[in-house]
Amino acid sequence: MTEAKKIDFQTDPARYRHWRIETDGPVANLVMDVDEAGGLFDGYELKLNSYDLGVDIELADAVQRLRFEHPEVRAVVIRSGKDRVFCAGANIRMLAGASHSHKVNFCKFTNETRNAIEDASENSGQRYIAAVKGACAGGGYELALATDHIMLTDDGSSTVALPEVPLLAVLPGTGGLTRVTDKRKVRRDRADVFCTVEEGIKGRRALDWRLVDEIVPNATFDEGVGARAAEMAAANPLSGPGPHTGIELASLERSIDADGVRYSTVTVAIDRDGRRAEITIAGPTVEAAATPEAIHAEGAANWMLNAARELDDAILHLRANENEIGTIVFKAQGDPERVATHEAALLDNGDFWLAREILLYWKRVLKRIDMTSRSLVALVEPGSCFAGPLAEIVFACDRSMMLEGQFEGDNRPPAELRLTPGNFGPYPMPNGLSRLETRFLGEPEALEVARGRIGEAIDAEEADVLGLVTFAYDDIDWEDEVRIFLEERANFSPDAMTGMEANLRFPGPETMETKIFARLTAWQNWIFQRPNAVGEEGALKRYGTGQRAAFDMTRV
Amino acid sequence: MTEAKKIDFQTDPARYRHWRIETDGPVANLVMDVDEAGGLFDGYELKLNSYDLGVDIELADAVQRLRFEHPEVRAVVIRSGKDRVFCAGANIRMLAGASHSHKVNFCKFTNETRNAIEDASENSGQRYIAAVKGACAGGGYELALATDHIMLTDDGSSTVALPEVPLLAVLPGTGGLTRVTDKRKVRRDRADVFCTVEEGIKGRRALDWRLVDEIVPNATFDEGVGARAAEMAAANPLSGPGPHTGIELASLERSIDADGVRYSTVTVAIDRDGRRAEITIAGPTVEAAATPEAIHAEGAANWMLNAARELDDAILHLRANENEIGTIVFKAQGDPERVATHEAALLDNGDFWLAREILLYWKRVLKRIDMTSRSLVALVEPGSCFAGPLAEIVFACDRSMMLEGQFEGDNRPPAELRLTPGNFGPYPMPNGLSRLETRFLGEPEALEVARGRIGEAIDAEEADVLGLVTFAYDDIDWEDEVRIFLEERANFSPDAMTGMEANLRFPGPETMETKIFARLTAWQNWIFQRPNAVGEEGALKRYGTGQRAAFDMTRV
Repeated sequence: MTEAKKIDFQTDPARYRHWRIETDGPVANLVMDVDEAGGLFDGYELKLNSYDLGVDIELADAVQRLRFEHPEVRAVVIRSGKDRVFCAGANIRMLAGASHSHKVNFCKFTNETRNAIEDASENSGQRYIAAVKGACAGGGYELALATDHIMLTDDGSSTVALPEVPLLAVLPGTGGLTRVTDKRKVRRDRADVFCTVEEGIKGRRALDWRLVDEIVPNATFDEGVGARAAEMAAANPLSGPGPHTGIELASLERSIDADGVRYSTVTVAIDRDGRRAEITIAGPTVEAAATPEAIHAEGAANWMLNAARELDDAILHLRANENEIGTIVFKAQGDPERVATHEAALLDNGDFWLAREILLYWKRVLKRIDMTSRSLVALVEPGSCFAGPLAEIVFACDRSMMLEGQFEGDNRPPAELRLTPGNFGPYPMPNGLSRLETRFLGEPEALEVARGRIGEAIDAEEADVLGLVTFAYDDIDWEDEVRIFLEERANFSPDAMTGMEANLRFPGPETMETKIFARLTAWQNWIFQRPNAVGEEGALKRYGTGQRAAFDMTRV
Repeated sequence: MTEAKKIDFQTDPARYRHWRIETDGPVANLVMDVDEAGGLFDGYELKLNSYDLGVDIELADAVQRLRFEHPEVRAVVIRSGKDRVFCAGANIRMLAGASHSHKVNFCKFTNETRNAIEDASENSGQRYIAAVKGACAGGGYELALATDHIMLTDDGSSTVALPEVPLLAVLPGTGGLTRVTDKRKVRRDRADVFCTVEEGIKGRRALDWRLVDEIVPNATFDEGVGARAAEMAAANPLSGPGPHTGIELASLERSIDADGVRYSTVTVAIDRDGRRAEITIAGPTVEAAATPEAIHAEGAANWMLNAARELDDAILHLRANENEIGTIVFKAQGDPERVATHEAALLDNGDFWLAREILLYWKRVLKRIDMTSRSLVALVEPGSCFAGPLAEIVFACDRSMMLEGQFEGDNRPPAELRLTPGNFGPYPMPNGLSRLETRFLGEPEALEVARGRIGEAIDAEEADVLGLVTFAYDDIDWEDEVRIFLEERANFSPDAMTGMEANLRFPGPETMETKIFARLTAWQNWIFQRPNAVGEEGALKRYGTGQRAAFDMTRV
């Protein structure tokens, strides 16, 4: 399996090979019908509705489009288009052949997609049902775990299962262990049994053990699912001001070449020798649409929505296709006040579904940045527009540096930071706190001081005093300080960086999300390195060969 | 470095090579003065107050003895016996030469020792001060982080540092990252700077960044430390009924041979072919001492204290010296009512320092079991005495099986479980919940039902209905079910077991402790496998050779 091929995270329903969206008024069916020959790479067939990253890119796109293009949909049924299998999970041959970094990236993206499903349910009232007929194993059951309601046919054979441990000597890769214990609250010794029973658990015991929410006689399964979906949809009517019709997520303007990616408002410039990428975001150039009708009329052209989509794609591109780029440098250029105005138009119309969706999407994109295992640095320079959602990027970074005054011979206005109400709540981190709350865990009074400065242009000296940036430098020191930092960072062990950043970025409370990303992922990464899983005699490599894996039995 | 040598966790001050306990009324000095030639294994010298597991075994012993033998001590100053260095952290040559499992076990034990320091401060009012003069780096700073109050001399050169990332390409191994962000609440971008600055941070900046609590002029450092210790001691007088004098922790009765370990109340039988160890705990045979005076007169002979000490040593022995033993089977034999009575005597005298210390020690031993990366199973058989603290072991296990009725031809009384108030609070898990609360996260009503059964003899059928055991079997099925489970477990990948158990055992809330053990440890384990750290060209292997490490720059 070769990974030289670039992975593209952009798709649309007309191009799907593995999923169908079938909407019927307030209910949608999301039908998984994986094309065996449609793997992202050569060397494996996607049998039994097993999936690879390409399948999940379509699912992520479908979940996103259901929110923006079909706000009338209030319940989504995930079902299989195959007769005898719901979903067999991640494709094992793909996993066995993939590089460590691809496996880890794949798991991260699929986790983010499952979280997006839960976010749609929790925050957009688009509720999800898993209609399970046939085998539902591994990643298949983890997909079901991301829904609100798991319905299992009682046909005497259909099971739910997490067979990764007994079959493959790895952990379920998409939050399965955490959702079993923390979302479904399965008793821990039963979870232990469940996770070591290769064949899974069916019928009554699956229900009694809280592994599914409902078992339905096979003869009436489809009607049962339909009735439940209709009921859940009716319980969640779309409210707030209209228009209540969807908007189209048109294709992004994008050109990719060897040195970077250029979108309409986001530019990615890659410095391979320096092992870093610079992402520059251009602020809005037009006035903000200020009413539901006007926001709706803008649709995907809305600056906030468009910037989020482009930034999201840029981050995913770097994660998947640029593995030796260790540092991402964020810059912005534009009018900070106008950025604040565009965000304010959405916050002021927060009861309008589309405004809410755009803000929720920003929340997810910012979390995608938090979870990106590259060193993140913001350079707050003259002419930049780090306000509201863009200031949030500064607070997401491992470090930020801000220039005092101007560069010689450069008449762009001195750098400023501009706080908005958006920096105090609407974009929580995976730990459930705002980035400023997280930043000021030890100095809650500093949070209140910052809140008092909402709307003001904060210059470098002030930002330093307020604790909003790591360092402020004058133009004499700036170039050297930035250069030394970037060079130093590029020479550290990338593994140590990944581990250190994963720990330092998320102080304070833990949530199911931080547990999945920080704790479960770390164990998984560890196991994905172990010869017992990935060695020539390991379980992942030997799966399907008829040979048993040979284990080094040393406990660690 | 050979690891064939058995590691012994028993020591006493007369045998210390690296530490001295100097008590002076309510203040003790714990002086670290590591003997360079006193390493646990050959192949490295413990220069600059660097440490290996042997050094930490002495520290753990000292912390324990201060609680039991010196309850009059109310403030403990950790200081260095060397002139120019506080502590240089874990010995790097030792780490570079150690097996993966030894490194992981070493970090786990040192973490437990740091937690024991924090437990002594929080629950026994024995407060700790780190008096830092000279370099305080890596594990040295992590030791300081475990204290209540870090005092740094302002001599222009003494620093605190976590140089692991830049110097060795690994993470600080003993909770450093988590304590920096979550205990000391250092701002995350400053934590990022601190953890990448090899030379550390000194003086005023260390104070401003919350890395230390106090900087003291070098000329008055010792007086300053003495005054602070006297003040902290005076603020924490020993209260409650007497006697207020310490008891002696006499040497354990213990014989070790190839097939196991025999203590006075605990027996460890090793089945190497089955890759399992059976730990049997004998219940008390004498009446419980019921008054402070009587408990004090028993001293280390108190059944609860003695059983905790023996169990603790048995677990540590298996962890360190029996790496291929994948499963620990817990059994008990004795009178359950008498176990409950012995525990009740301590709970009823909870304001007496020694009763409290014994219960707190049980809490720590039970946590040691929770954190042991071996499959844990309890077999609740006729004649067993799983009551109170021993029932807690059943709830700590990954699985428990209980026999219905008696074995044919065996007249021991049928198995029973006996709940006590001890099962509902005094022994919280690392997640802060009792084991039953954790078990019944999804069924809080079951917790209340169980609480209503305190003091009753609960037989297997009832225990099954109440959810207190995983499975109840009759004597026809028992043997096969137990055998099949143990055989199956022994054949799973030990890595997958470790990862699965670490996730399933700790649902619900997270604490600094679970973060350190589950999240930080997992990242560390991952990095300890990576060629960038441990490969021939990795940073850990090349440290001190003059050659730079060669890194694979792929980000994961």
